[in-house]
Amino acid sequence: MAKKEGSIAQSKLSPKDEVWKYKKYLCKARCFDITAGGKIAVLNETEAHENDLYTSHRVILRTPKAQTVAIIDLSSDIVQRGEIVLFSEVAEELGATEGTPVEILHMQRPASIEFIKKKMDGRTLSKHEIDTIMRELMENRLSEAELASFITSIYIRGMSDDEIVALTESVVATGQTLQLGRHPICDKHCIGGVAGNRTTMVIVPIVAAAGLYIPKTSSRSITSAAGTADTMEVLADVSFNISEMREIVQKSKGCIVWGGALRLASADDKLIKIRNPLSLDPKGVLLASILAKKKSVGAENIIIDIPIGRGAKIQDQREAGELARDFINIGKRLGMKIEVLITDGSEPVGRGIGPALECHDVLSVLSGGGPPDLRDKSCQLAGALLELSGKVKKGSGFQAAEKLLSSGKALLKFREIVELQGGNRNLKPDDIPVAPHKHTVYATENGRIFHIDNKMISKIARAAGAPNDKAAGVLLLCERGDRINKGDPLFEIHAVSESKLDFAIKALEGWSPVELRKVVLSSIN
Amino acid sequence: MAKKEGSIAQSKLSPKDEVWKYKKYLCKARCFDITAGGKIAVLNETEAHENDLYTSHRVILRTPKAQTVAIIDLSSDIVQRGEIVLFSEVAEELGATEGTPVEILHMQRPASIEFIKKKMDGRTLSKHEIDTIMRELMENRLSEAELASFITSIYIRGMSDDEIVALTESVVATGQTLQLGRHPICDKHCIGGVAGNRTTMVIVPIVAAAGLYIPKTSSRSITSAAGTADTMEVLADVSFNISEMREIVQKSKGCIVWGGALRLASADDKLIKIRNPLSLDPKGVLLASILAKKKSVGAENIIIDIPIGRGAKIQDQREAGELARDFINIGKRLGMKIEVLITDGSEPVGRGIGPALECHDVLSVLSGGGPPDLRDKSCQLAGALLELSGKVKKGSGFQAAEKLLSSGKALLKFREIVELQGGNRNLKPDDIPVAPHKHTVYATENGRIFHIDNKMISKIARAAGAPNDKAAGVLLLCERGDRINKGDPLFEIHAVSESKLDFAIKALEGWSPVELRKVVLSSIN
Repeated sequence: MAKKEGSIAQSKLSPKDEVWKYKKYLCKARCFDITAGGKIAVLNETEAHENDLYTSHRVILRTPKAQTVAIIDLSSDIVQRGEIVLFSEVAEELGATEGTPVEILHMQRPASIEFIKKKMDGRTLSKHEIDTIMRELMENRLSEAELASFITSIYIRGMSDDEIVALTESVVATGQTLQLGRHPICDKHCIGGVAGNRTTMVIVPIVAAAGLYIPKTSSRSITSAAGTADTMEVLADVSFNISEMREIVQKSKGCIVWGGALRLASADDKLIKIRNPLSLDPKGVLLASILAKKKSVGAENIIIDIPIGRGAKIQDQREAGELARDFINIGKRLGMKIEVLITDGSEPVGRGIGPALECHDVLSVLSGGGPPDLRDKSCQLAGALLELSGKVKKGSGFQAAEKLLSSGKALLKFREIVELQGGNRNLKPDDIPVAPHKHTVYATENGRIFHIDNKMISKIARAAGAPNDKAAGVLLLCERGDRINKGDPLFEIHAVSESKLDFAIKALEGWSPVELRKVVLSSIN
Repeated sequence: MAKKEGSIAQSKLSPKDEVWKYKKYLCKARCFDITAGGKIAVLNETEAHENDLYTSHRVILRTPKAQTVAIIDLSSDIVQRGEIVLFSEVAEELGATEGTPVEILHMQRPASIEFIKKKMDGRTLSKHEIDTIMRELMENRLSEAELASFITSIYIRGMSDDEIVALTESVVATGQTLQLGRHPICDKHCIGGVAGNRTTMVIVPIVAAAGLYIPKTSSRSITSAAGTADTMEVLADVSFNISEMREIVQKSKGCIVWGGALRLASADDKLIKIRNPLSLDPKGVLLASILAKKKSVGAENIIIDIPIGRGAKIQDQREAGELARDFINIGKRLGMKIEVLITDGSEPVGRGIGPALECHDVLSVLSGGGPPDLRDKSCQLAGALLELSGKVKKGSGFQAAEKLLSSGKALLKFREIVELQGGNRNLKPDDIPVAPHKHTVYATENGRIFHIDNKMISKIARAAGAPNDKAAGVLLLCERGDRINKGDPLFEIHAVSESKLDFAIKALEGWSPVELRKVVLSSIN
């Protein structure tokens, strides 16, 4: 599976397409600055029909420089005969500008469709079949409907270990890979779903300060109030290409960059697009998706954090245990040593929810203070990674991590990374600007805090503008177990404008993100 | 389930959307003549991001007259702040023109997603849940990926009889219904896949001539060389609205119109769009799809033709028998009397493949001649319908149908229908123009014809231009069982231009649509 760093699978015409080469026609490009979330080209309606092409058909477009697959729209007015209108994604992929000649070719039925049906029918896919699906996915030959069908089939039918290993390798091969040339390489991953859980930004400097390599890639938020990449971006740049990333890690041993800019495991980014709207994360695809990202950076020792509990993605110990077993087994087959920590994910971690507020927590922890839960969890995970890598002996990881934190070595390492990523190394927690429009929510009765809901808190923070407004979000003023009195402040909402604040306050109506303990849960009569 | 004729389920905002009403903004419409096969609107990128809207998001668009759900593309150049570009389908749905004010509202997660996941998990859906999915489908709230996931789940998990009945009723409710006010109403349906199989155009006049009502709706071709609607269109109009259709049937007792123009069982048309690219026709959806169309015209007695054999959609008697049982049972629960005929579908029926060539066969049969297989099959099906409706007694249907044909009564009825549908009642078979550019394929050896392949013949006819070029297609000059000598003509390809003929000839390369009998099938050494 080893690939040269920077190499990417190229789209190629299959021999079948060549058969249809004679049914092609040539047009001159006109470029429209429209991004459509997919590759769209517009043809003249009459000319398209003459060529047996209809709305929503997929065609191969070819310029002297490049080729791609696009979906066609039709127009009888905006596009004249002999013209083809290219939306932004297509023009970019083809390297086309006004007037570039574009050949339009019929595309044959993708070979993958047969393999997707095979999976639907409950049969096992071979490495070759999985490779074909990933290749055609990358070539844009498969529609959203076909991909959704594939993911749904995997959800229902499951995947064998062989299939998951094949899928992981196949996904790795679709993207770039980091060739660091240094060892040992560590990594960590969290299944997600916990608001404010920014342990990565504490763990990376601890691990790097201990002398291990940790080329960490993180994601941006999809439905949460912030992803680690969004939060890190408050302090430094996060968009780097693979050679810039390598340079940073070779200098400082660690980095915290946005995975999306690197084109690692590219097929995974396309699969995620399908999985998100359906909230569909079949285990086999989840495993392949996470492990492909780790394999792509050359990770050898990996800690995986599986938060469980009320509102978490994984409900209970049993389910988490099964997933952990799979991670470890599949990881071993792919040459990666994995340890899984099952953590309490029922409540948010830290006080801030939203990029700037979370950043404040992280810097506070690195500076020796900060929310105790964030500090403790980060040291647990970092410690496990130090032990797994053989850096410290079994049972002494937590203390080692704690020492790197309290000695200020982790902070120093973090500043080094921030500086290498183009940020200001001297920023202190209170230098981080928080959105000025504030609304405080108070307790309406006395009691003890029983639960703080991750999803509701995230939604309120999003309604207030996070993660796009970096300074917006929610600041928790209480935690589970606290005794409170009527009138005590529970949390603050921060927004960059009065209208966004209003929007978040309205979103709050009918919700109780902070629950008090009750003896009588409901009365029925 | 009874609905007033012409009424259609209206899109309504769910209460949840109202919650988000305050997060809306207003733009002025600009209309682009682009058909995208879906509802697309383009927003100014900056303005959209400020409103937490991103590429591929679905939004509710509202004008003083109407509202719809659209998918958004973004532009920072073509679309200015305060503007929204509407593609053709959206502009039409909204009744919007240049400058129409359009309100843009966030859309909440569709309720259907939970129910689709329920089906994925193998649980049974209630009537309410199925209704919700069909309603949100009609409101354009579900993406292709979500729908594909639904269809895939049904394919894998199956559907109970209760679910199929609920789905059929639900689909009927999404469209218009014909209130004919006359009885008995007959109908027929063929599962398809057989080239040249234009029995409908013979059966309808026979049945109507016998005094029964047969308001027949037909489809256009999707992957074949012609649908019945395409073939009928050679002689007459086929696009009518529901009240025009009622008028024709009240006058002549029969019609042969294009179902697509009537908006019967509208949800089905949307589901078909998803099923086709995947070639995915799960039994429950197939049953509901067909029976909803029949229920929508008020059909009481229905003959269903299930062709089986090599290359047919259904492979064997056992599978066809099971499907037949389901048709009969579900039909009974929906108040429809159904008889299923399992027919030989391994070879084309008739000689012509393509609209005009098929039309020639039909007119020949109605005029007393024509291909014997088309004549025989049509009389079998029409006869069964006469018996099922109680018009003639058991066992005498075929003779009754044959008599209506040979007496010329069916031809007279057909001419009446053609005239009512705006065609020329006096056209004779040889008046129908056939495309002038012709290529004849000859036998390259002596032998007996063993098989003529439906799919290959259809593909060649399509390559030659059918169904868009009405006069294009394939004319078979032989049939299964014929003894032929080297140099005998097997079939002709007709096309409207030399280049289209060339294209079809090239498509033929490497294919043997007409197979001779061989003793040794292959030799391995």
